[in-house]
Amino acid sequence: MGATGRGRLLVAGTGLIGTSVGLAARKAGYEVVLANRDPARLEVAVDVGAGQAWDGESRVDLAVVALPPAVLAAEIARLQRAGVAPTITHVCSVQLQPQVEVEALIGPWPGFVGGHPVAGRERSGPHHAAGDLFADRPWVVCPTPASGSEAVAAVETLARDCGARVSTMPAADHDALLARLSHTPQLVASALAAALLGLERADVAIAGSGLRDTTRIADSDPDLWAEIVAANPQGVASALDAVLEPLNALRAELASGAMSADAVRTLVERGRAGRQLLAGKHGQAAVRWATVTVVVPDQPGALARLLADAASGGVNVEDIRVDHSPGLPLGQVDLDVAPGHAAELVSVLEARGWRATGTQAAGHPAS
Amino acid sequence: MGATGRGRLLVAGTGLIGTSVGLAARKAGYEVVLANRDPARLEVAVDVGAGQAWDGESRVDLAVVALPPAVLAAEIARLQRAGVAPTITHVCSVQLQPQVEVEALIGPWPGFVGGHPVAGRERSGPHHAAGDLFADRPWVVCPTPASGSEAVAAVETLARDCGARVSTMPAADHDALLARLSHTPQLVASALAAALLGLERADVAIAGSGLRDTTRIADSDPDLWAEIVAANPQGVASALDAVLEPLNALRAELASGAMSADAVRTLVERGRAGRQLLAGKHGQAAVRWATVTVVVPDQPGALARLLADAASGGVNVEDIRVDHSPGLPLGQVDLDVAPGHAAELVSVLEARGWRATGTQAAGHPAS
Repeated sequence: MGATGRGRLLVAGTGLIGTSVGLAARKAGYEVVLANRDPARLEVAVDVGAGQAWDGESRVDLAVVALPPAVLAAEIARLQRAGVAPTITHVCSVQLQPQVEVEALIGPWPGFVGGHPVAGRERSGPHHAAGDLFADRPWVVCPTPASGSEAVAAVETLARDCGARVSTMPAADHDALLARLSHTPQLVASALAAALLGLERADVAIAGSGLRDTTRIADSDPDLWAEIVAANPQGVASALDAVLEPLNALRAELASGAMSADAVRTLVERGRAGRQLLAGKHGQAAVRWATVTVVVPDQPGALARLLADAASGGVNVEDIRVDHSPGLPLGQVDLDVAPGHAAELVSVLEARGWRATGTQAAGHPAS
Repeated sequence: MGATGRGRLLVAGTGLIGTSVGLAARKAGYEVVLANRDPARLEVAVDVGAGQAWDGESRVDLAVVALPPAVLAAEIARLQRAGVAPTITHVCSVQLQPQVEVEALIGPWPGFVGGHPVAGRERSGPHHAAGDLFADRPWVVCPTPASGSEAVAAVETLARDCGARVSTMPAADHDALLARLSHTPQLVASALAAALLGLERADVAIAGSGLRDTTRIADSDPDLWAEIVAANPQGVASALDAVLEPLNALRAELASGAMSADAVRTLVERGRAGRQLLAGKHGQAAVRWATVTVVVPDQPGALARLLADAASGGVNVEDIRVDHSPGLPLGQVDLDVAPGHAAELVSVLEARGWRATGTQAAGHPAS
């Protein structure tokens, strides 16, 4: 161990993830040193408090290589050959390809353990360069068959110290899983959004919030995703198959003129079942919340007033969705509450002057 | 015109949409009469104030048939033959098939005008049986070549009186557009969610908010969607093609082992361009908001406190997303603010004790 309780950590690569690891690890008591080929980017990371510049030689207890896939394995091999650290990990969105490349360069080495903090890159919105980036987020640790237990423990400890929830699985399992949970949804959302090209903006304005939700992650970075998918061809191919198979079958039925409503019903039913697997709040089985819809003026503080009024009635708001109305200075806000509390919330809000509507459970036909 | 300023309106079918039309129209000054084969459902609609029970004979100025596609055309023909109303419209999610069926029964008739309030059924969440259902939502009016201008005007006026934003287009255009904006996204989201079946809940818990957003509408009703898609085979086939073509091509590339990152990059780039068409707030070109991420405890009123604190700093929150952390009693909340206001909001929130992180613009790779 180094000078502090948690040991000395090298972060090689001070982009958003690397810098965030530095910030989180320092907060947790690690002594952090930073490396970057680009002195300007290194300086920024030092300036924001992610650690001190590494001298390029001194030993550390653990090295995190936070570089793009294209240069990752070479840097890991370089550090291993220099004897810089007994344990080296990385933070890549894919695991199998880096593992294969690293083993090709240095052979099976007990000190190498893959890792993937599932944060920032898979999120729909902007990336978050901060120590909080990993708070309560998954961090998948991927030992190789050669990884030593001390090395695995060191990486798991770092992940936990950064505030993450740790799962451990082989690289191939990670890649297959992430293909289904992240890489394929990204491609499908991009394809859905790309299919809008050619429409007029006024026509697209007819879309409801469903299309906006479904395509939100299509705002992601093209270069980043090209790199991720190219590094996980088998995982993505298999996950894409599972999504495309029923859609291609449906397309063929539509073309044949022999469309059966059954095919659509079955697909939507299976989708509902799949959604139930997506953890509800706190990883419990998904709860079907009751929803209260409120018309909200587009004024500073309107959302805050709404939630304060809701809270004043003692009803906890479990989730909130804002659906702006194109063309008019009003938005609809959906507030999810525990089943049975919708009517209560509606009367609380109406008493305070809001136009609020409680709704029945999802899934009822509208006729 | 009837006894009141806006005329006398018959709503035939008192499900969620029909009842909501009654509520909205009464509020706007229409005299509303209601019909339903099921006396119990009729009574509910009367009880909630959507109108009085129709006597089954008396004439009205406008009839809205709010019945499922399977029985829609027959009821429209029945009302037309009885001479009940000079204008008859409906509220179906599809337009061409009902129009063809109606014309097959009664021929081209100037009083028939299709209509589709895009509200409730296309929304990701529960349906909303209330007069506010149509507020600021699109309502597409679909005249036939035979529709008279007075009939078209009567339907457009009703839609506006219900608070909706009116667009007018031919039935085939409507069906092609809705296939792209609603029907196909529904099928794709269902297929994505269905592809999760077979995974363990613990594995799915690794998913980020992107997958939740992308599959939210997969919670929809299977019977309803079977009916909608079956009634719009051409529109859905063509819209599905546009989505499936690049994904099938990518799948073929992955299988051939000749995956080029270019194909992925191009698809994601086109998706970003498509997303720009999705109206930003108020139908303007999409703005890329700056985002502030805040860690929020799972306590009653926490969201309200957060937004009140944000408002106290004078920063308007443009959008909000809640991302519950499976497994821990914390959530991350993303607050979107105008570009340039993120740092201000972070300091406002930190001064009030929140863990808040401003973020840079979306789309930067994470290395």
